[in-house]
Amino acid sequence: MAYEVVDTQLSPDGRLDILSKAEVHRLLDTRNGGLYQLFRNCALAVLNCGNDTDDAKELLNRYSSFEISIIQRERGIKLDIKNAPASAFVDGKMIKGIHEHLFSVLRDILFTHDEVISNPTFDLESSAGITDSVFHILRNANVLHPHLNPKLVVCWGGHSISREEYDYTKKVGYEIGLREMDICTGCGPGAMKGPMKGATIGHAKQRIPTGRYLGVSEPGIIAAEAPNPIVNDLVILPDIEKRLEAFVRIGHGIVVFPGGAGTAEEILYILGILLHPDNAGQPFPLVFTGPANSADYFKQIDHFIGVTLGPKAQKLYKIIVDDPVQVAQEMQDGIKAVREFRKSKGDAYYFNWGLKIDHAFQMPFFPTHENMRNLSLHQNQERHELAANLRRAFSGVVAGNVKESGIRAIEEHGHFEISGDLSIMDPMDKLLAAFVAQGRMKLPGKAYTPCYRVIK
Amino acid sequence: MAYEVVDTQLSPDGRLDILSKAEVHRLLDTRNGGLYQLFRNCALAVLNCGNDTDDAKELLNRYSSFEISIIQRERGIKLDIKNAPASAFVDGKMIKGIHEHLFSVLRDILFTHDEVISNPTFDLESSAGITDSVFHILRNANVLHPHLNPKLVVCWGGHSISREEYDYTKKVGYEIGLREMDICTGCGPGAMKGPMKGATIGHAKQRIPTGRYLGVSEPGIIAAEAPNPIVNDLVILPDIEKRLEAFVRIGHGIVVFPGGAGTAEEILYILGILLHPDNAGQPFPLVFTGPANSADYFKQIDHFIGVTLGPKAQKLYKIIVDDPVQVAQEMQDGIKAVREFRKSKGDAYYFNWGLKIDHAFQMPFFPTHENMRNLSLHQNQERHELAANLRRAFSGVVAGNVKESGIRAIEEHGHFEISGDLSIMDPMDKLLAAFVAQGRMKLPGKAYTPCYRVIK
Amino acid sequence: MAYEVVDTQLSPDGRLDILSKAEVHRLLDTRNGGLYQLFRNCALAVLNCGNDTDDAKELLNRYSSFEISIIQRERGIKLDIKNAPASAFVDGKMIKGIHEHLFSVLRDILFTHDEVISNPTFDLESSAGITDSVFHILRNANVLHPHLNPKLVVCWGGHSISREEYDYTKKVGYEIGLREMDICTGCGPGAMKGPMKGATIGHAKQRIPTGRYLGVSEPGIIAAEAPNPIVNDLVILPDIEKRLEAFVRIGHGIVVFPGGAGTAEEILYILGILLHPDNAGQPFPLVFTGPANSADYFKQIDHFIGVTLGPKAQKLYKIIVDDPVQVAQEMQDGIKAVREFRKSKGDAYYFNWGLKIDHAFQMPFFPTHENMRNLSLHQNQERHELAANLRRAFSGVVAGNVKESGIRAIEEHGHFEISGDLSIMDPMDKLLAAFVAQGRMKLPGKAYTPCYRVIK
Amino acid sequence: MAYEVVDTQLSPDGRLDILSKAEVHRLLDTRNGGLYQLFRNCALAVLNCGNDTDDAKELLNRYSSFEISIIQRERGIKLDIKNAPASAFVDGKMIKGIHEHLFSVLRDILFTHDEVISNPTFDLESSAGITDSVFHILRNANVLHPHLNPKLVVCWGGHSISREEYDYTKKVGYEIGLREMDICTGCGPGAMKGPMKGATIGHAKQRIPTGRYLGVSEPGIIAAEAPNPIVNDLVILPDIEKRLEAFVRIGHGIVVFPGGAGTAEEILYILGILLHPDNAGQPFPLVFTGPANSADYFKQIDHFIGVTLGPKAQKLYKIIVDDPVQVAQEMQDGIKAVREFRKSKGDAYYFNWGLKIDHAFQMPFFPTHENMRNLSLHQNQERHELAANLRRAFSGVVAGNVKESGIRAIEEHGHFEISGDLSIMDPMDKLLAAFVAQGRMKLPGKAYTPCYRVIK
Repeated sequence: MAYEVVDTQLSPDGRLDILSKAEVHRLLDTRNGGLYQLFRNCALAVLNCGNDTDDAKELLNRYSSFEISIIQRERGIKLDIKNAPASAFVDGKMIKGIHEHLFSVLRDILFTHDEVISNPTFDLESSAGITDSVFHILRNANVLHPHLNPKLVVCWGGHSISREEYDYTKKVGYEIGLREMDICTGCGPGAMKGPMKGATIGHAKQRIPTGRYLGVSEPGIIAAEAPNPIVNDLVILPDIEKRLEAFVRIGHGIVVFPGGAGTAEEILYILGILLHPDNAGQPFPLVFTGPANSADYFKQIDHFIGVTLGPKAQKLYKIIVDDPVQVAQEMQDGIKAVREFRKSKGDAYYFNWGLKIDHAFQMPFFPTHENMRNLSLHQNQERHELAANLRRAFSGVVAGNVKESGIRAIEEHGHFEISGDLSIMDPMDKLLAAFVAQGRMKLPGKAYTPCYRVIK
Repeated sequence: MAYEVVDTQLSPDGRLDILSKAEVHRLLDTRNGGLYQLFRNCALAVLNCGNDTDDAKELLNRYSSFEISIIQRERGIKLDIKNAPASAFVDGKMIKGIHEHLFSVLRDILFTHDEVISNPTFDLESSAGITDSVFHILRNANVLHPHLNPKLVVCWGGHSISREEYDYTKKVGYEIGLREMDICTGCGPGAMKGPMKGATIGHAKQRIPTGRYLGVSEPGIIAAEAPNPIVNDLVILPDIEKRLEAFVRIGHGIVVFPGGAGTAEEILYILGILLHPDNAGQPFPLVFTGPANSADYFKQIDHFIGVTLGPKAQKLYKIIVDDPVQVAQEMQDGIKAVREFRKSKGDAYYFNWGLKIDHAFQMPFFPTHENMRNLSLHQNQERHELAANLRRAFSGVVAGNVKESGIRAIEEHGHFEISGDLSIMDPMDKLLAAFVAQGRMKLPGKAYTPCYRVIK
Repeated sequence: MAYEVVDTQLSPDGRLDILSKAEVHRLLDTRNGGLYQLFRNCALAVLNCGNDTDDAKELLNRYSSFEISIIQRERGIKLDIKNAPASAFVDGKMIKGIHEHLFSVLRDILFTHDEVISNPTFDLESSAGITDSVFHILRNANVLHPHLNPKLVVCWGGHSISREEYDYTKKVGYEIGLREMDICTGCGPGAMKGPMKGATIGHAKQRIPTGRYLGVSEPGIIAAEAPNPIVNDLVILPDIEKRLEAFVRIGHGIVVFPGGAGTAEEILYILGILLHPDNAGQPFPLVFTGPANSADYFKQIDHFIGVTLGPKAQKLYKIIVDDPVQVAQEMQDGIKAVREFRKSKGDAYYFNWGLKIDHAFQMPFFPTHENMRNLSLHQNQERHELAANLRRAFSGVVAGNVKESGIRAIEEHGHFEISGDLSIMDPMDKLLAAFVAQGRMKLPGKAYTPCYRVIK
Repeated sequence: MAYEVVDTQLSPDGRLDILSKAEVHRLLDTRNGGLYQLFRNCALAVLNCGNDTDDAKELLNRYSSFEISIIQRERGIKLDIKNAPASAFVDGKMIKGIHEHLFSVLRDILFTHDEVISNPTFDLESSAGITDSVFHILRNANVLHPHLNPKLVVCWGGHSISREEYDYTKKVGYEIGLREMDICTGCGPGAMKGPMKGATIGHAKQRIPTGRYLGVSEPGIIAAEAPNPIVNDLVILPDIEKRLEAFVRIGHGIVVFPGGAGTAEEILYILGILLHPDNAGQPFPLVFTGPANSADYFKQIDHFIGVTLGPKAQKLYKIIVDDPVQVAQEMQDGIKAVREFRKSKGDAYYFNWGLKIDHAFQMPFFPTHENMRNLSLHQNQERHELAANLRRAFSGVVAGNVKESGIRAIEEHGHFEISGDLSIMDPMDKLLAAFVAQGRMKLPGKAYTPCYRVIK
């Protein structure tokens, strides 16, 4: 099958048009394969927005002739693009939102490499150093706004959800937008797109031209979850752990919609953090919600949390079924408490320095077959440690489902094997099976072949 | 049944906060009943947005305790509002878009009275004087922008349409917005709201914070077609004739979606004007469109036009079924021709002075029973004259359906009687009957009782 | 002597580019001599800014070939200008500030004629009607800003002052600007320009890009006192009485620098108003100030006020010599009191509706020889009435000095004759003689021939 | 003598309010004496603006109790300031321009340390690495604007000049501002302030709210040449060599007014660069100008250049006496050529990458007594090498005059000794003597004691 492609040249709008000679050289230097490949692949992912694949490997094959390079001009640089997916264009002109995303990708990949990874000021092995690097990447992306009141609602949930669930996420976003709050998501389709569309209409009715639709991604996932063009601030963190840290440090509350393994990973991440004794007093509004027929789904999740992390974890969230207005009001009230808490402590509104994130949640987890097999999934550990390990297990499943490296690893070595205490393995297996049965693992269109096997 | 109500006080944002003492007095002067009643009723209509009635009389009864008054404060005036419909508020605070609409109503009613109707500079009996008054009202509402390129697409169509038709209008609006064009409608629900919602998303993706969603209304209809809050420029013209003139002088192209008697009135109006010999060379993109299952609907309309106004009229529009992209491209191309035409003539982009509008289309038609009976609906006249008379007939039906004065007249004197040549009456009867059968005359929920009788 | 001239075409920036056909016709209609001549002469005055004449008649002769006309274009109107003074241009391009002033002139002359003078809504014989007209002209010029706190300092004083006095007005303006207050003057050279230049630097240091330099003029004087291009809001009132009313209704305090007959007229105007019993409680900061060597000048003025209007009038102002910081602080404190007073009364900040201005100060005074002779300048009347008559006497002298009509009248009929009680005539004669001796009557360069004779 | 002081707390406006915990710690860390002392001293210099000293050592003694520290707050950091010079405040509130400068100082000192000096990406020993660091500091300070046309005029000249010379610099600035060009200076008093004041008025008349008044300083000089508050973009480069490189890479043309040793240093710097064979084709408008009575001054300079750098160097500039309009037009024409040149090469407008700056002009020169004594000031070298060495000689004199380290060195070890070929030493001695005689070495008020001795 042939995919329609387009060539173009683009100028950036913001700070990115000013690159030094050295920066341009590093980007163009294709010999060591490093930055250029990363940049090219992320750029292709962004351009593929609106298309029908969440398979990173397939995407790269589909547009193997895609090329992107940087040209120096008197008013700054230009991107020269060959064989880009046609869906990024309207009548031959690139959609402005996608155009901006391309330059966000360039900015973050360049900055992260030059001023974070290569800069010894950042100790990326220490907890403080990792947090510092997340802070710097976000600040450089200009998404930390000190003069704003807290109002950023993070929405998590699946990229592959039903029409009814999708419409529900739009309604929740609409009510959030009407209440002048902003939206932050992982920036793919489904539950990551619906709230932004709804909020756009809510903001329009409230005459808020500055509504924020913040997308937080990572190079590994962006191909599977291309940012929808409504996203008007896009940041690429280097890995899923820093991406999750970004969500919880800049968001003032979290709404979780139905989803699959990725959503489970996110839920385990936030619960693991909130369970940490140091975070005991931190207000953090957390709501799980969906339309009427998702009531069972959340019962299942709630049950899984109960049997693994216990009732203390279950008290950290509220489940609201089929009531967008209540969800929005819950967030509004919760965020008010966040504001008062931060104010009383003199803490920043735009970055939650005070949240303790354990080193175990920060260190990148590489889902190799060996690492997956060795995960410590037994009851005999602190609850937040168990949460950290369960998080890794689901993270591995996501990688096997949609990330390029994960897909290749599965192709080569077969299933990931996950094992542990039966009291954990059993509900986990059921949860994963339910995700598969409900079509939450992959976009519809193909049969899903599990990438894992739960060993009980 | 009790309807929930809210009290509030509001400050205007723009020029309206500066009223002279004399202006405030005129507005507060309720004795002569004139301006105050008009202002109150329009204000109530605007506040009722999102509710489920298109019956002006019912609305007034429902909120009979509604009150609105003006208070002078050190930084300008305030509106003091009692017993307003609760749907205009989110958690007790009025939606900003509705807030703005209230002040647009105040502005237009005040200005129109003081500086147009009471000002002898305007000869409202002459064609030039009427056009001049339309121009002044629009200019005062700050909707004429000389530095913009032509890009305003007027969307006409019914307020009562099917879900499928509504979704289609959103898709068309989306494609129009992606192509950086703006939307102007009569500002009620249905086909007047869908294109604006779609364009809002399109504009968001193209990063156009200045997208225009212009609503053009009149005191008689506003209760039935309350402006949806996305409308970010609202103008109230004093009557339907000046409102229609506003549409065709500021719009650069027109898309007609399915609708009922009001839509038929609009179609006859624009065809009557374009048929005028003086307008022979004027480019004016005009597209009738709907989803796949509205193909028959447009065949019917096309047929009616054929037998009444003839094949010359049929050449003035293009029917496009189920193709939003093509509709948007057609408008874009057509508007390009409009731009070149105006440029070559040195004509303004923001107001089409060059369009000849016959006096017959400009003079207010009062749909009394007598006037309706006396309409000259025979073939023995110029086509644009017949168009003018047919327009009046449909205008009367709209009044009988949804305008307060019309509803009261029907209650008192029974049906309007419409008569004329059988070759006209017969297709007209069929068309109206089809509108009734398809539920296009009134919002769903009640059985529709026709307000007219076609005498064949 | 030949004066260098330039031709050009100009587009307006704001609302003015949208004129109706009728408006363009009225402006172009030169037959009745009315609007066109007025517009042309004011336009020429504005363009003459920076040149060395304050003689309106001489200016008109100097540029007798100057022409200005209006052309309709697709994006609005253009002004077509022939033989304009070259000093308005930099390297062939008109200075933007002057460009804006031209369109302010067009706006005010057109609006005043169409919507004030021709509109029966305004009763220009009544006190309320005159105030209403002033309000409408100011509102239309967009100089009433309801959301600003009071901070507009009116600066009065001579157009012909010494270098030392001029530098002092700059320093006062600088201290006013540093305190974030704005400046309003009669917009010519000398004491009308200095405070604006000073405030510009003060505002730059305080990073206030919205500093206002408001010029208030009238067709009769504009040729003698062309607005300096720093003026970023220019309003033309139809006559000196409405201009003075504009000053005192929009200003929140007044600083008077040394000047001649015009300054005396202004002082008598404000004192006459503040002496009115109805204005007893009104806070109104009023400071007379100049550099060290102007101490005697203000003693003279103070003495004249003492013998004519009495000690009650002398309590209404404060004389500050050579202390710019104190002047600015005095204004700041006084304006604070104004703010509190208005707030407590619910009065507007942007227009002082509460100030009583007697009809005698509002009705235009035409300084014919007969009217000047008949002025009632005796002690046997209320002090504010005497102030009104004295004001007229000085107004006549200004006209004879610099207004076209006055200069022509003097050429034809000789001196104005001013007579009255010796106790008034004697100090008046001395004051005028001092103005002559100090070169305050006319710009330097020619000997001044008095246009009046005081009959004792 | 006691100096009035004020305490205050300040919030930043821009990006600077978002500091990471690590950054705040580094700034507050006084142990190794590093950043805190540097930041405190520069901050004090900025606050001292408008005061009467150019002696860095004296300044530090005068306000020895001055303290500045950083506090974390929920909306970002605050600066807590104790015992700041009262002249930075108006009625107790810090002048906004000075407020901004404080945060520019903070930004540049922090960034330069963290992301330039500590970052191994920058090789500060190589020519390319130094240029890269200058670029990064400027980009981080947000003074590189890729979408602007070339229009930045660098103005050099003395901080201690006569009233007449000062007024002349204002007039030149005014004409530059009227022509819509911007100003960049070393940001102290005298010739560094006048052009900005003039341009402010020119920009006001042309309605340019975005006029740029860019100040480029260094920690060593800022105490002697505190930025005047009109400067609306302030950048602190780490040393004089990087500061000079910043001037010539971002400026599009240079105007040199009369001045002393610092001005001579600047002239030798730019001539040395333009004499480099690689820069042969580079257009670079360079004008020396002053009022009528400075004609002799420029003859002297021209003569010195002739005998040291030769006639080729003399062809690189144009001397214009007493003609501000011609100076502005010369810049305008020259910059037009710059634009065309860059366009033809695809070079950036905002940073002149193409200019070759020899390593000798980039490496910091530390003016110790030994280094000064060893300067190679003989004819037997390339002209641009001689220029580099002469530049160092004058740089040392500046340090001895006004920089803290220089003043202390002279106090300790006596005069700098400068020696070389008589054909160079003789005119150099005369030039320096003339600077002394004309009062150009230091601000007036004290007798100047030379810090150097020319050994012939």
